[in-house]
Amino acid sequence: MNNYIDALNWRYATKIFDKNKKVSPGDLEKLMAGIQLSASSYGLQPYEVFIIEDEEIREKLKSVAWNQTQITDASHLIVFASYTEISEKHIEAYLQTISKARNVSMEELAGFRTMLQNTILQQSKEAQAIWTAKQAYIALGNLLSAAANMKIDTCPMEGFNAEEFDNLLNLKEKGLKTTVIAPIGYRSVEDQTQFVPKVRKSKKQLFHLV
Amino acid sequence: MNNYIDALNWRYATKIFDKNKKVSPGDLEKLMAGIQLSASSYGLQPYEVFIIEDEEIREKLKSVAWNQTQITDASHLIVFASYTEISEKHIEAYLQTISKARNVSMEELAGFRTMLQNTILQQSKEAQAIWTAKQAYIALGNLLSAAANMKIDTCPMEGFNAEEFDNLLNLKEKGLKTTVIAPIGYRSVEDQTQFVPKVRKSKKQLFHLV
Repeated sequence: MNNYIDALNWRYATKIFDKNKKVSPGDLEKLMAGIQLSASSYGLQPYEVFIIEDEEIREKLKSVAWNQTQITDASHLIVFASYTEISEKHIEAYLQTISKARNVSMEELAGFRTMLQNTILQQSKEAQAIWTAKQAYIALGNLLSAAANMKIDTCPMEGFNAEEFDNLLNLKEKGLKTTVIAPIGYRSVEDQTQFVPKVRKSKKQLFHLV
Repeated sequence: MNNYIDALNWRYATKIFDKNKKVSPGDLEKLMAGIQLSASSYGLQPYEVFIIEDEEIREKLKSVAWNQTQITDASHLIVFASYTEISEKHIEAYLQTISKARNVSMEELAGFRTMLQNTILQQSKEAQAIWTAKQAYIALGNLLSAAANMKIDTCPMEGFNAEEFDNLLNLKEKGLKTTVIAPIGYRSVEDQTQFVPKVRKSKKQLFHLV
């Protein structure tokens, strides 16, 4: 566990990535497992994740993200794209996944289906979109800490034109919208921010013991 | 790193906690460090965290959370409460924290102050509240994986009456609102859900390599 805390202390929002260092396929598999195993409300995982290595598309994405060089300098760009709304189709697919994983019939899941329908589908589309985005942030958190545990650098980013990202990645037709992104790779020795002390609220400021 | 993935595989949304097992003060400190070190947009950490052990208040909270027994059976209840809006006061406090941690003058932070004001304060209050809640979800993700790494169980929950939680914890006067909660403790041997296979999207369903 101390390693876990050490890793969180080691990580920082990397400003300059080393262009010449790539995350290995094996390490990428582990990061994907970290994302895949993230908790989500009802277990629905209402998002998909794009792992972008292609240089041309990253150049285009950078141009609609304040030209932040991490997008192209990093090894890969991870894009979390959450469902714009929840449909019967999503619930059906999820129930199929449960049925297969747990070897239970769809009939046995009828009660759970009704519960999902009654809670999620009754929400407004706007509320659904906020909710799916929040679930993606749990997965983002896991990516950051999984990567830190492997001494892989990350830089979570919200500063991009989400609509342009959606266009460039053809997300609308998939019922997805860009929620948050994170380049991953290795810090450059030239990145001075790695030497700056981490800033966090004190425990007294952050926590209330009741 | 394999330990990290193993821990995520070990964790599940615990339905029945062992009432007799408490998280030790030392372990609680480590979980707090995990939350404290979570990334947040601009580093602002726009939330506070309540660690609730008091039985009487937990009984009241349970009564406005569908009587889910995890709330009272677990060792502690963690409540993530995010800022209802961002004010100049929050920005000022954050800049003071940076100034102290990095030994830079407030004058040197003037440019950063203007940037924060121009980006965050220009948003609608509603957009600010959605944004602060998302940041809390990153911290929730860290709590879940930090706990799993210590073989401490958790159950993230969104099923509660947030307004009643706000009332019971006097959050409104603090400019906070309940965003998400998680009881922490140790699984009961009687909890059958621990034996049920984990359900996740396949990598093919979840990821797109570009």
